[in-house]
Amino acid sequence: MEKVKVGILGATGSVGQRFVELLENHPFFEVAALCASEKSVGKAYGDLMKSRWKISSDIPSYAKPMVVTSPEPKETPGLQIVFSGLDASIAGEVETAYAEAGVMVISNSKNHRMVDNVPILSAEVNPEHLAVLDAQLTKGKIITNSNCTIMGVTIALKPLFDQFGIESLMIFSMQAISGAGYPGVPSMDILGNVVPFIGGEEPKAESEPQKCLGHVQDGKIVSADFKMSAHCNRVPVFDGHTVCISVKLKKKASKEEIISLWRNFQAEPQKLSLPSAPPKPIIYREEDDRPQPRLDLYEGKGMGVVVGRLREDPILDWKFVVLSHNTVRGAAGAAVLNAELLYKKGYLRSK
Amino acid sequence: MEKVKVGILGATGSVGQRFVELLENHPFFEVAALCASEKSVGKAYGDLMKSRWKISSDIPSYAKPMVVTSPEPKETPGLQIVFSGLDASIAGEVETAYAEAGVMVISNSKNHRMVDNVPILSAEVNPEHLAVLDAQLTKGKIITNSNCTIMGVTIALKPLFDQFGIESLMIFSMQAISGAGYPGVPSMDILGNVVPFIGGEEPKAESEPQKCLGHVQDGKIVSADFKMSAHCNRVPVFDGHTVCISVKLKKKASKEEIISLWRNFQAEPQKLSLPSAPPKPIIYREEDDRPQPRLDLYEGKGMGVVVGRLREDPILDWKFVVLSHNTVRGAAGAAVLNAELLYKKGYLRSK
Amino acid sequence: MEKVKVGILGATGSVGQRFVELLENHPFFEVAALCASEKSVGKAYGDLMKSRWKISSDIPSYAKPMVVTSPEPKETPGLQIVFSGLDASIAGEVETAYAEAGVMVISNSKNHRMVDNVPILSAEVNPEHLAVLDAQLTKGKIITNSNCTIMGVTIALKPLFDQFGIESLMIFSMQAISGAGYPGVPSMDILGNVVPFIGGEEPKAESEPQKCLGHVQDGKIVSADFKMSAHCNRVPVFDGHTVCISVKLKKKASKEEIISLWRNFQAEPQKLSLPSAPPKPIIYREEDDRPQPRLDLYEGKGMGVVVGRLREDPILDWKFVVLSHNTVRGAAGAAVLNAELLYKKGYLRSK
Amino acid sequence: MEKVKVGILGATGSVGQRFVELLENHPFFEVAALCASEKSVGKAYGDLMKSRWKISSDIPSYAKPMVVTSPEPKETPGLQIVFSGLDASIAGEVETAYAEAGVMVISNSKNHRMVDNVPILSAEVNPEHLAVLDAQLTKGKIITNSNCTIMGVTIALKPLFDQFGIESLMIFSMQAISGAGYPGVPSMDILGNVVPFIGGEEPKAESEPQKCLGHVQDGKIVSADFKMSAHCNRVPVFDGHTVCISVKLKKKASKEEIISLWRNFQAEPQKLSLPSAPPKPIIYREEDDRPQPRLDLYEGKGMGVVVGRLREDPILDWKFVVLSHNTVRGAAGAAVLNAELLYKKGYLRSK
Repeated sequence: MEKVKVGILGATGSVGQRFVELLENHPFFEVAALCASEKSVGKAYGDLMKSRWKISSDIPSYAKPMVVTSPEPKETPGLQIVFSGLDASIAGEVETAYAEAGVMVISNSKNHRMVDNVPILSAEVNPEHLAVLDAQLTKGKIITNSNCTIMGVTIALKPLFDQFGIESLMIFSMQAISGAGYPGVPSMDILGNVVPFIGGEEPKAESEPQKCLGHVQDGKIVSADFKMSAHCNRVPVFDGHTVCISVKLKKKASKEEIISLWRNFQAEPQKLSLPSAPPKPIIYREEDDRPQPRLDLYEGKGMGVVVGRLREDPILDWKFVVLSHNTVRGAAGAAVLNAELLYKKGYLRSK
Repeated sequence: MEKVKVGILGATGSVGQRFVELLENHPFFEVAALCASEKSVGKAYGDLMKSRWKISSDIPSYAKPMVVTSPEPKETPGLQIVFSGLDASIAGEVETAYAEAGVMVISNSKNHRMVDNVPILSAEVNPEHLAVLDAQLTKGKIITNSNCTIMGVTIALKPLFDQFGIESLMIFSMQAISGAGYPGVPSMDILGNVVPFIGGEEPKAESEPQKCLGHVQDGKIVSADFKMSAHCNRVPVFDGHTVCISVKLKKKASKEEIISLWRNFQAEPQKLSLPSAPPKPIIYREEDDRPQPRLDLYEGKGMGVVVGRLREDPILDWKFVVLSHNTVRGAAGAAVLNAELLYKKGYLRSK
Repeated sequence: MEKVKVGILGATGSVGQRFVELLENHPFFEVAALCASEKSVGKAYGDLMKSRWKISSDIPSYAKPMVVTSPEPKETPGLQIVFSGLDASIAGEVETAYAEAGVMVISNSKNHRMVDNVPILSAEVNPEHLAVLDAQLTKGKIITNSNCTIMGVTIALKPLFDQFGIESLMIFSMQAISGAGYPGVPSMDILGNVVPFIGGEEPKAESEPQKCLGHVQDGKIVSADFKMSAHCNRVPVFDGHTVCISVKLKKKASKEEIISLWRNFQAEPQKLSLPSAPPKPIIYREEDDRPQPRLDLYEGKGMGVVVGRLREDPILDWKFVVLSHNTVRGAAGAAVLNAELLYKKGYLRSK
Repeated sequence: MEKVKVGILGATGSVGQRFVELLENHPFFEVAALCASEKSVGKAYGDLMKSRWKISSDIPSYAKPMVVTSPEPKETPGLQIVFSGLDASIAGEVETAYAEAGVMVISNSKNHRMVDNVPILSAEVNPEHLAVLDAQLTKGKIITNSNCTIMGVTIALKPLFDQFGIESLMIFSMQAISGAGYPGVPSMDILGNVVPFIGGEEPKAESEPQKCLGHVQDGKIVSADFKMSAHCNRVPVFDGHTVCISVKLKKKASKEEIISLWRNFQAEPQKLSLPSAPPKPIIYREEDDRPQPRLDLYEGKGMGVVVGRLREDPILDWKFVVLSHNTVRGAAGAAVLNAELLYKKGYLRSK
């Protein structure tokens, strides 16, 4: 069976590199275009990236000879999907152009996230949000990822939200430097230091979870109505966002019920055996001092969300800690999983 | 005028080293005894500490020739004060022995903190708690410091508590490795990592602030009645605990009022011009990304508490960030300031 | 075909954990005993290691139910090989006891390294050193690894030594914290710091390379006769020793010859297709700023030695940089490779 | 007595900030101009630097209200000295313009360093090199600092060079991130990593020491003739370059002689009691594991060079470790000390 031809927009950036890595030998998809800005166009990806490849494994051999092209539909014919790791300054326009050209856009950028007929799709959390795609007027459709911190948080909350409802949610993040891309955070700012601020992060963190956990009504996504507060911090960790959470539920829950819900959580990607789906989306660890980025980051090949330290909260109801890999589960890996879901659900057949 | 003779218990440990440093050339106090465990007794402090001194300045010259003694009252005659940086495993007994021998004990250990006639003294926050000392039956009295994280937090909260009252308080800490002493945290556990757990820390963090901000009644300290929740984390920072705080106040406050209270806060140590008192106990910074350990740790020679990022909290009322130096303001420096307060208030004259 | 039964001595330590990981599903070997000190004996490895497992992947499932035994031959019958990650304080005696009991001992400890009929075996460098085993009087034999820094260095030097000879060798190491085991280096000593000293390291670094590159004569290993100088430093890197090298060769070499020798280097493990052998033992990278631990550590699954920056040295002849994974290529992985070599060469058949 | 009016070129950069800090309340100098690039001109330094000030103390109050000007002689009348922390891309031209306008230029940039009538001045090493200034044709003169790594190295070598002569010198550096300025090294490149390469550093490191230790002949500086090899590495340390050194001397020396020379070393700045001169330019520590950036960086207020681990080298004669503060002793502090030397020696009187 022929594979679906896909392109990577922003292929030289941090998220783009992860796409190049994760799509190597993919059973459904074949990378047919690597797109980047004008100054990279025309160069072989392998040469271009020699000193810019920041993942601790070599550049996949399929990508090395590929010649970088411009992120324009007419320059990249034949694609059914583009994965976008574009900078927000240009993502809006470029992604819209691809959607108009009939290409399915799977985006990591924030530009279209809060549009009410664009899903912030998380394959384990809200596959039913795909229903709003019909309301998008373009021939191709745009699907977004949430912010990298929020992805793991909403997966951990999903079974609690379904069973008990959420009244209010407070999150405190300790986010890895890779979340800021490359060159990103200067070492003089973060070595042996923490920075209790990440530009633009808290507004996203305080609005995206409600949309992710919302429901579809009249072709639009209606956000869930819980209150949220976020404290976002940068810490000297390479990969892996650790989030402390306090939550007030609508119904009474016991510790055993919550842990059991997490441990038994299975969703659409697991039921469909999607290639990138981790066998267990949520792993609960009982040790006092877990999860930790050092030890738990690669659960489920970076697609598992690791939870620990569930205990009662004296103000809200419960508190716990959530860790997820910000550039895999929180970005490129989640996008690939979303594309796999679309593939299996038949959203790509029309081509 | 003759100086008051003081001893340092646990003089070889992390907090003990800070005492040795901070008491050099002190206008009121003269270090007359350095006490440590049996295997150090009889050795010159300078020789003993050659490879164990972990502060980035040399061992003070007064301390180098001093011979280490055992932490027993009969071995250290003539002291009016002992500063204790003892391990909790022995602090209870040793400190009690000194109090019974008529020595004023200024302790960093947790052992006596929650006894209702032992103040958790913070010179800027609750000097009136000294009134309970009379209720201690020993000839000498025991005065404690709060936990190193709580010290900065309660100073930042003090003016808000007095003006508006506190209904509930949620804190998320990112604590430095020096808080665990030496050898303390293994580098394999914390380099490029965060650990969302510190043994025994959260129970202290959830009970000491209420006692610090409590009032004296019938010779006992009655804790304030607000609810508290703490998430305590270890991060790869050398010195300086950064705490994100969300707080619900009893009365309505404006942003301007709060900042003005912080900026104008002056307390007993400032009024008495105590030698270790910072000119401003609280420094509010307006930049988005402050406070940070790297940049703000040594405000007021490590005795200033730096606050930033005041903004509305969608769940509780306000959120902000507090930074303080955990081994200076949060431990040895606060203890020295407490001793200076006792000196100026006449608590040492009896000798 | 039945697998060879092996035991791991010091199974709870840093190197021991790597053995447990690397021997999972091994084609030749089956772990039949996990040995550790008295206080661990009788406990299931999985329970015991819950909070002590420091590798970023879970404890292999085969090991979890295994009950830890004492490192004594009579407690661990039926073993043909023991892999030793024991502390030097006890390794000498325990390893000798196993050799006397007829077990092949593959050791990471320094105790027997400099005995002239005990090879410091490096499968790519000196497989012919196995000839001295006959001179060991015990029924089982003892084979050692070199120091973790020296392993990668000697592999990189091997083709140059064979072709051009070595006159003198100067090495400057920047060694990872995992080389000191756990708890090992206190974080207060190394976070944001470098320590230009590692206890006992330089004497080993200045004598083992000559023995590794030596030859067998009359049943003994005669060390090569070049002069060596080592500067050993600890740096805040988790895994991966980076070594800057300056070398004077006996014969004139060109840059092209040297790089070509590295790139084409193949040795016994590659010829025998040993399971742990990397396809290329030496990888030469042409970028100015490589090798780096972050990017190059897992070449050949941690068994590749990555070399870069070859340039003329104004004092000696050439200088370059060598990186190897200290707990894989420099310890457990090298030991497993040595055992595979013994297996294929027929040294284990006697049993 | 009126102070000498000085300007700081590149006042917003890393070295520029150190100048602003070190020149606060200087007994000889008064900062009369802060110069920076066009986009900063006309703004108050305090406002401009609010989020760019990277030193862990506040912006000096004298500098806050100063309005930034353009680095052009006509815009900054009345200056006798300019301290230049300019980027090499513009330093050459701007510094020459100031020299032509009659201003003494004290530069940290590399542009004029290797000109034979421009001294690489190090006040403790080669004050006699000032004799070549007469050979500069401009009315003002240009004086440079060496590279930040070389400064500490040449001070440590100076007494050995004078007493025994140097035959060959091998250095291996572990350099702090602040040496690359701000934003400088991306955190993704250095956190938990080392990079065995610093662009352009080794050629400077292999030629400047010989010039620093050279002699004046016919109005020119003639470099010393020893051979040098440098391996330069970047490590995750904030401030402080640590250098391992192996050296071959021309005459035989004993360990005691060398240590005694270091401990007794006094030079022109000490004899003249220059304000920035450390009491001891070289501090030798006997502990095995020193010097370390964490513990030894601020010896002599950052102007002391700390040396340790002297031992015999099996290839060259001696090896040891040198630490110096790269932005103080290795840059701004050394420049200020040079200016103080000029002042005391009468080089500024002409104005």
